[in-house]
Amino acid sequence: MAYFDVASSAPLHPVARQALQASLDEGWADPARLYREGRRAVLLLDAAREAAAEAVGCRPDELVFTPSGTYAVHSGMSGALAGRRRIGRHAVVSAVEHSSVLHAAAAHEAATGGTVTEVPVDRLGAVSPDAYAEALREDTALACLQSANHEVGTEQPVAAVAEACRGRGVPLLVDAAQSLGWGPVEGAWSLLTGSAHKWGGPAGVGLLAVRKGVRFAPQGPADERESGRAPGFQNIPAIVAAVASLRAVRAEAADEAVRLRALVDRIRARVPELVPDVEVVGDPDRRLPHLVTFSCLYVDGEALLHELDRAGFSVSSGSSCTSSTLTPSHVLRAMGVLSEGNVRISLPLGTPETDVDGFLEVLPSVVSGVRERLGAPVSAAGSAGTGPSLVVDALGKRCPIPVIELAKVFGDVPVGGTVTVLSDDEAARLDIPAWCEMRGQEYVGEQPADHGVAYVVRRVS
Amino acid sequence: MAYFDVASSAPLHPVARQALQASLDEGWADPARLYREGRRAVLLLDAAREAAAEAVGCRPDELVFTPSGTYAVHSGMSGALAGRRRIGRHAVVSAVEHSSVLHAAAAHEAATGGTVTEVPVDRLGAVSPDAYAEALREDTALACLQSANHEVGTEQPVAAVAEACRGRGVPLLVDAAQSLGWGPVEGAWSLLTGSAHKWGGPAGVGLLAVRKGVRFAPQGPADERESGRAPGFQNIPAIVAAVASLRAVRAEAADEAVRLRALVDRIRARVPELVPDVEVVGDPDRRLPHLVTFSCLYVDGEALLHELDRAGFSVSSGSSCTSSTLTPSHVLRAMGVLSEGNVRISLPLGTPETDVDGFLEVLPSVVSGVRERLGAPVSAAGSAGTGPSLVVDALGKRCPIPVIELAKVFGDVPVGGTVTVLSDDEAARLDIPAWCEMRGQEYVGEQPADHGVAYVVRRVS
Repeated sequence: MAYFDVASSAPLHPVARQALQASLDEGWADPARLYREGRRAVLLLDAAREAAAEAVGCRPDELVFTPSGTYAVHSGMSGALAGRRRIGRHAVVSAVEHSSVLHAAAAHEAATGGTVTEVPVDRLGAVSPDAYAEALREDTALACLQSANHEVGTEQPVAAVAEACRGRGVPLLVDAAQSLGWGPVEGAWSLLTGSAHKWGGPAGVGLLAVRKGVRFAPQGPADERESGRAPGFQNIPAIVAAVASLRAVRAEAADEAVRLRALVDRIRARVPELVPDVEVVGDPDRRLPHLVTFSCLYVDGEALLHELDRAGFSVSSGSSCTSSTLTPSHVLRAMGVLSEGNVRISLPLGTPETDVDGFLEVLPSVVSGVRERLGAPVSAAGSAGTGPSLVVDALGKRCPIPVIELAKVFGDVPVGGTVTVLSDDEAARLDIPAWCEMRGQEYVGEQPADHGVAYVVRRVS
Repeated sequence: MAYFDVASSAPLHPVARQALQASLDEGWADPARLYREGRRAVLLLDAAREAAAEAVGCRPDELVFTPSGTYAVHSGMSGALAGRRRIGRHAVVSAVEHSSVLHAAAAHEAATGGTVTEVPVDRLGAVSPDAYAEALREDTALACLQSANHEVGTEQPVAAVAEACRGRGVPLLVDAAQSLGWGPVEGAWSLLTGSAHKWGGPAGVGLLAVRKGVRFAPQGPADERESGRAPGFQNIPAIVAAVASLRAVRAEAADEAVRLRALVDRIRARVPELVPDVEVVGDPDRRLPHLVTFSCLYVDGEALLHELDRAGFSVSSGSSCTSSTLTPSHVLRAMGVLSEGNVRISLPLGTPETDVDGFLEVLPSVVSGVRERLGAPVSAAGSAGTGPSLVVDALGKRCPIPVIELAKVFGDVPVGGTVTVLSDDEAARLDIPAWCEMRGQEYVGEQPADHGVAYVVRRVS
């Protein structure tokens, strides 16, 4: 039984639990009140704010607590965009930001008529500082860049991008949700957001830091709490627990970073040896210590999660073929990597080596079992081939069937011949080119068809 | 040591504490995930939603959890107003709603150019259903009415207003923050909001019910959680604790309502006997069981709170003369009652009779001590009078000084003569007429003066 999905949510850290229980008696009253219960509450809140600010690397009066990391992003973006409306309504984001950032950017476009530039990423998931700098314009009100990607673990060049933004006078908001437990964010950021349940704090606590001097106009109804940046009564026991947890995980971070990095290196090296037709994605070096993502050809993501869960391993997936999503992860799509049979592993602090070994032991049979049930091709090599071209009708079939059908017949065309896959599944647009890249075959392109899209692949070896 | 301010925030109920601790181990994972930790979390969340819906009197799929009662109000109002934008942009609220409602209404005006009608209240703090019905227009998108007032405890005629709204096809949002622990809201409401820390649940949990058939368009960035009505990761242990607490206080409600109502009746009867120049406000009968508010002439609200705190009693105040506010409570203003020396008492469940008696014992000396330090008149009756009229310059002096100065000289004018008080304190506008009403003197009116405002009072007895 191993939980490998702290990038979604981490179990409550023991220190957080202690702090929560200890502050339930003192932290329930209104910190704005003048009587003793209120004064006790505000003491707890002030102390938590100071400790959080120290961990983030800002002044206490620059930091507010929000009801979630998502709310911190929404409030931070809308306040910074409104604060600079006179400069313009243009925002810059990377293509691989968390959905809370992308949704806030979309809301900005819809509500104010603003525009948003998405800076693309390379195949490892990182933006180029130069490309990011080029996206900044005279009318750019806000730039956003995550500290590290939540799906593939790749670290972004935040310090370089912050420098470019500073040169242009554009504030940079850093979504540090995935990295804040590991350390402060380097560089001259202007706004920063975080989420406590990612670092072992309770849910219900996010944080938003806004550096002095950043123009900020809180949006939505007025509220006197948290500088008007997060309305509603503060949950002080949860805030105290969140900050205690942040300090505790920071104390373990240096040692655990080394240890978990080695475990992730083991996964990155062993999975392609143990399982055929796998692509490990994300930057192998500039990455979060504890997170790795890979995709398995010819595998249905939901079935894979289900079988891994039965085998005692809780992981998540950015595949389109899971019940919680119908389109493949925008992160994998932006990277141009395979999305089918996608697995993200994010190791909790203290994960024993034996859990990782146990995972590596069950993974090959789990993947081959899923492939077998789907009728996936066992070997990738083809025969001499029977004709110059073939058409595969995969209409109405969901990921990973279109790629499986492609692979099944690919050996039947001679070198130089083509296979055309007809598909109406959105994931095929990503997965068929990714299959070509993995197989060293040529992806010719796509054409509209009577039904769905025709994806054309040429056999080159 | 007695805490008499549950209308601000209640201590965590023992049942809530148990439920919180019991669910910390099971409720931390992402309820949207397919693995066992996610399935356990969603089971807890679903069960909490069912129980909350039963307590509210709606279907589980009509209820979402929000990060606070304030957020529930903001989300409920903005979603309902946007959902009926084609009908119009007019909103109706009572003049004594909680600030979260009034601020959301103001934000609606600012953001959409909508208009808001405030329905006045009588001297007891209640709206008239007829007056409310008259405020409804063809272009009214939303009506809002609290179930009971948070400052004076007066119950609003929600069922009658809901009926009027239904007749006009206007959805009614009921802010039930103060009453939900006592029972469900009667009547055909369309939307309802609540706040867990008011009923002994943890902070960080509000609820928003939106009846099926009510047009609702969530505002702000898209989010897949809680039907898009409350973005961010749910705090499931806190939600479980909040609902457990709601059920627990409901089980005690019938008995405690009788017991606390008698204690409040005792306060309502005894305070005017024990302390001269006091006005007990709010409806004596149609009211919350546990809440009573009174105002003391010639008293500084902040000094009163401070002295009561030193004597071991934690209460709140709607006076302007407290450090947290510079204008008198909009509720007291709308009622036209005295705001100076205002004290709100809201008794926790289980408040022992001896605590109330202890309060009644210390109150007279606390009030007289504050009055003495301010140089307030000891007796209200005046002498024969020395001349036809007097002018008192109270410019630059804060509440309660202008009223004290008025009272000091009032006996110096003959019956038929006037006293004019020059004041630049906003509270005087409320407190001088209220003093006249309490004293049976005639309030002539106000006139602009070179500095501040001239308030004219005629001696009639």
